[in-house]
Amino acid sequence: MNAPYEDLQQQAQQLSESVTRPIPGSRRIHVAGSRPDLRVPMREIVLSPTPDTFGGGENAPLAVYDTSGPYTDPEVRIDLAAGLPALRRGWIEERADSGPQQGLGSVFGRSRERDARLDAVRFPTRHQPLRARAGANVTQMHYARAGLITPEMEFVAIRENQRLQAVQDAGLLQQHPGAPFGAAIPRVITPEFVRSEIARGRAVLPNNINHPESEPMIIGRNFLTKINANIGNSAVSSGIAEEVEKLVWAIRWGADTVMDLSTGKHIHETREWIIRNSPVPIGTVPIYQALEKVGGRAEDLSWEVFRDTLIEQAEQGVDYFTVHAGVRAAHVPLTAGRVTGIVSRGGSILAKWCMAHRRENFLHTHFDDICEIMKAYDVTFSLGDGLRPGCIADANDAAQFAELETLGELTKVAWQHDVQVMVEGPGHVPMHLIKENMDRQLRECGEAPFYTLGPLTTDIAPGYDHITSAIGAAMIGWYGTAMLCYVTPKEHLGLPNRQDVRDGIMAYRIAAHASDLAKGHPGAQVRDNALSKARFEFRWEDQFHLGLDPEKARELHDQTLPRDAHKSAHFCSMCGPQFCSMKISQEVRGQTAEGPAT
Amino acid sequence: MNAPYEDLQQQAQQLSESVTRPIPGSRRIHVAGSRPDLRVPMREIVLSPTPDTFGGGENAPLAVYDTSGPYTDPEVRIDLAAGLPALRRGWIEERADSGPQQGLGSVFGRSRERDARLDAVRFPTRHQPLRARAGANVTQMHYARAGLITPEMEFVAIRENQRLQAVQDAGLLQQHPGAPFGAAIPRVITPEFVRSEIARGRAVLPNNINHPESEPMIIGRNFLTKINANIGNSAVSSGIAEEVEKLVWAIRWGADTVMDLSTGKHIHETREWIIRNSPVPIGTVPIYQALEKVGGRAEDLSWEVFRDTLIEQAEQGVDYFTVHAGVRAAHVPLTAGRVTGIVSRGGSILAKWCMAHRRENFLHTHFDDICEIMKAYDVTFSLGDGLRPGCIADANDAAQFAELETLGELTKVAWQHDVQVMVEGPGHVPMHLIKENMDRQLRECGEAPFYTLGPLTTDIAPGYDHITSAIGAAMIGWYGTAMLCYVTPKEHLGLPNRQDVRDGIMAYRIAAHASDLAKGHPGAQVRDNALSKARFEFRWEDQFHLGLDPEKARELHDQTLPRDAHKSAHFCSMCGPQFCSMKISQEVRGQTAEGPAT
Repeated sequence: MNAPYEDLQQQAQQLSESVTRPIPGSRRIHVAGSRPDLRVPMREIVLSPTPDTFGGGENAPLAVYDTSGPYTDPEVRIDLAAGLPALRRGWIEERADSGPQQGLGSVFGRSRERDARLDAVRFPTRHQPLRARAGANVTQMHYARAGLITPEMEFVAIRENQRLQAVQDAGLLQQHPGAPFGAAIPRVITPEFVRSEIARGRAVLPNNINHPESEPMIIGRNFLTKINANIGNSAVSSGIAEEVEKLVWAIRWGADTVMDLSTGKHIHETREWIIRNSPVPIGTVPIYQALEKVGGRAEDLSWEVFRDTLIEQAEQGVDYFTVHAGVRAAHVPLTAGRVTGIVSRGGSILAKWCMAHRRENFLHTHFDDICEIMKAYDVTFSLGDGLRPGCIADANDAAQFAELETLGELTKVAWQHDVQVMVEGPGHVPMHLIKENMDRQLRECGEAPFYTLGPLTTDIAPGYDHITSAIGAAMIGWYGTAMLCYVTPKEHLGLPNRQDVRDGIMAYRIAAHASDLAKGHPGAQVRDNALSKARFEFRWEDQFHLGLDPEKARELHDQTLPRDAHKSAHFCSMCGPQFCSMKISQEVRGQTAEGPAT
Repeated sequence: MNAPYEDLQQQAQQLSESVTRPIPGSRRIHVAGSRPDLRVPMREIVLSPTPDTFGGGENAPLAVYDTSGPYTDPEVRIDLAAGLPALRRGWIEERADSGPQQGLGSVFGRSRERDARLDAVRFPTRHQPLRARAGANVTQMHYARAGLITPEMEFVAIRENQRLQAVQDAGLLQQHPGAPFGAAIPRVITPEFVRSEIARGRAVLPNNINHPESEPMIIGRNFLTKINANIGNSAVSSGIAEEVEKLVWAIRWGADTVMDLSTGKHIHETREWIIRNSPVPIGTVPIYQALEKVGGRAEDLSWEVFRDTLIEQAEQGVDYFTVHAGVRAAHVPLTAGRVTGIVSRGGSILAKWCMAHRRENFLHTHFDDICEIMKAYDVTFSLGDGLRPGCIADANDAAQFAELETLGELTKVAWQHDVQVMVEGPGHVPMHLIKENMDRQLRECGEAPFYTLGPLTTDIAPGYDHITSAIGAAMIGWYGTAMLCYVTPKEHLGLPNRQDVRDGIMAYRIAAHASDLAKGHPGAQVRDNALSKARFEFRWEDQFHLGLDPEKARELHDQTLPRDAHKSAHFCSMCGPQFCSMKISQEVRGQTAEGPAT
């Protein structure tokens, strides 16, 4: 934890090859927007032609959504100590409604800045935080409601479409009509549609003005389903350089946002390194740090400490805050009969505070004050579900739904401030009780984006909770959840290592994509179609490259058939050369073309 | 493949410790039935008391369904070369409707028996196959319809209940009411209920009279959801001893049935080793072997070769046969426009035969003849879905549903013979199209048990298809599927190794259990409740032992906190000692007991 600065610098320069090597079979491209500084990154998967035995023909390259930032681009030089380019800076400045602060706004931030002992771990470049000018509101929601289409909105419109027009032109847009449960996904995402969805609160674009490095993305039920990955050290674990590498690793595999849940000694400095190098929005749970500031004693928490923490983190550029303002004092006794009580860390901290002081949760009583801070930086609320069920038995109980009702009320308060809001959801829920969660959330929170942790559909598989929860996540995503917070195999058991993070993200990308298919998101099936066509035509390399994890697909294939020649073989190890159903099926197709059987 | 007999013997004696070591924290028990030879095995998980800080008290041991047979019982001596004890022999004999044959009934079986070159790989003890006496019908369905409750039926009734009464007496039966979609699960499974379900075709009890070693189990929508694991070598892979060990490995982790899909040189001998040592029903796809007998040329297949194969395998004791009698010649052209054509091996073989001969599928024209064979041994049909979709694009198409309609017709034909029937289902299906599969199957096949492969809910994750399919499997299980055929991470890429098999089975046990919870199966939630209570009380060992994979849970826990002291620590690595939400929650509970907050 006290690595000398040079070590850290060196580590930073030396991100592992495993986290930065290009994704096999693809290259990073940029799609131009309406202005020269608006270039939307995508990953283009290049495909080989169909073999002549299958009729031949070219296969158009496929552009897919890319969260990995420039890290996987071999033409970009990465310098972690400098941070990523501030691609949004110009857009923020030209709106002329924010400006640099005179010094840091938080007491804590200033104390860290003055502390020379931290030089060894500090991010080398100090940036001057921006804040809304007096009376201004810099949220994307505020602009949207004023009828303004920001460059950020145009960016996400282009990004969400994934060059759908090219797919359509190539005649590859065939897909099943979906069952969207009231979602209203247009055939083409326009910047105006993005604006309207943000204006009505049905989507959020979490981009703090102090995180200009971020590539704009949108979270809402009428857009592609997103996933979040958590990283963070804890008292028993990792250091700063490791956390930055975890970020790059997580976005490589497809995390759309990353929550930094660090609780260690250098939480402030770690966060700075992460944000400066993150192309995806970063979320935090400020109460964790606030608790550390009062020595871990929940009852010593106060609005003042919390407020200072919000400002500290908002100035660093955190894009969304989990705020457990829905844990009202009156809800706490509703949890007393539960099998696993309150399992949310934030929820239990605030419950304890309420009990100790016999007063209403200060996050609830100060909610308007929090909104004032959020709108000065455009930090998005993620209204925490501190009373979420921690086991199947506790699912959908009175405590959980009482809190959800409060979250609905708070959503509307935030919207009065033009502050963007997501609402967090459970947790542990058996399959047949999942839909009620979605239906209530849509109704009570006015369709504000739902952001759920799984849910886990059973408690009995510790070690496999990425799977117990991917089942629930896929279903709730279909029903309308906008972002799925991943769960790793280590859930309930320990801190995820690198492999756990990859496994968790993959399970959640599957869940998110399965949701998009079921909702009938336009173009969602294009990649499935392309991969299955490649599979049928024995284009092994294309099959790997079109998969969510090309490296894993190749690795597993090569365990049985390692030779390069097998990559173009018209059989695979499942049946062997003589016995292949795909091969027989092609022959059938050929014969069918000659005329039907009797 | 030509290991000398001694080697094989030795290998057989030496099953790896990893496949036979006892499941941590539990022991194999037997629950007595109405007669001395009826003892139903279960696994009892012994729990530690609740610590005094949580109020103290004993935690009753929990009996869970156990598929592992005697292999994990340290008190049983395993001798693979002798096979398992024939626990059902007495029951079969006392029915006095079958008897030993004069020699083997199949030409192929006799030729193998005479071939001295096979001595090196042959199962050492030759058993004399049983067959129904002339005019007799030895199926469990036949008995059920005659009003007879067999010992097998009583066995499964006891087994399915998992000592529910003990749980009820201990006051642990609280659970959410389910949403069963028309399933009619009684609170207690009685032998009479088992009989009635088999009689009406809504459940099958697949137990060939030549597989008396099997522990009876039942497959039906009103019973616990079951899973199947496939094993089998292929032209490019493994040998006999390896296959037996794979069987033991698969049932260790929870496979309720195992399909032997071997296609290699010693397919007949391998099968004998597997059946003689299998406590779970074994399924096969006889057309695979029939095809080998005609040199791999589908057009050379004939009813005679197929019939000989059915008899050969029925005499060995195969419990269920996949038979692709629903692939009618007229359906084949319906697949011509598909993205991935016919992906079922069996389906493509028969499609090719139909095309080559321009005649109806001989399995369809000889279906009554097949029924005659099935009822002479009590082999259960698994009516194969040879035209299942191999990709999302092909889901729920005309070919698939035309075949399903035929399978419904064939189900009724089989039932006229009192032959037990399951019906196989897809495949690749996006979430929103899954329910239609279940609804149609229930309607067209008269509620005969549905047995589905996944379905996979997206095509784009090669390397993770245990997850893409566990999502679909959990959902279709909830909707009413009786048995879920597992998919491993190697699906589409290669042959599963040991780790892949374990991963696939675990994903499917999760799916099956999530289904049972959602259907509201009585007692399904008991294990969830027990595990979550252990979790809340920091009884780490109990949490591991109650999980589906105790070894994995411990392994992951120990990656972060390896020391034994941490197994009773009142914190875990996720938050560290000071920051634990469970701990805070206990304090809240204590305070709540003193009186509600204001």
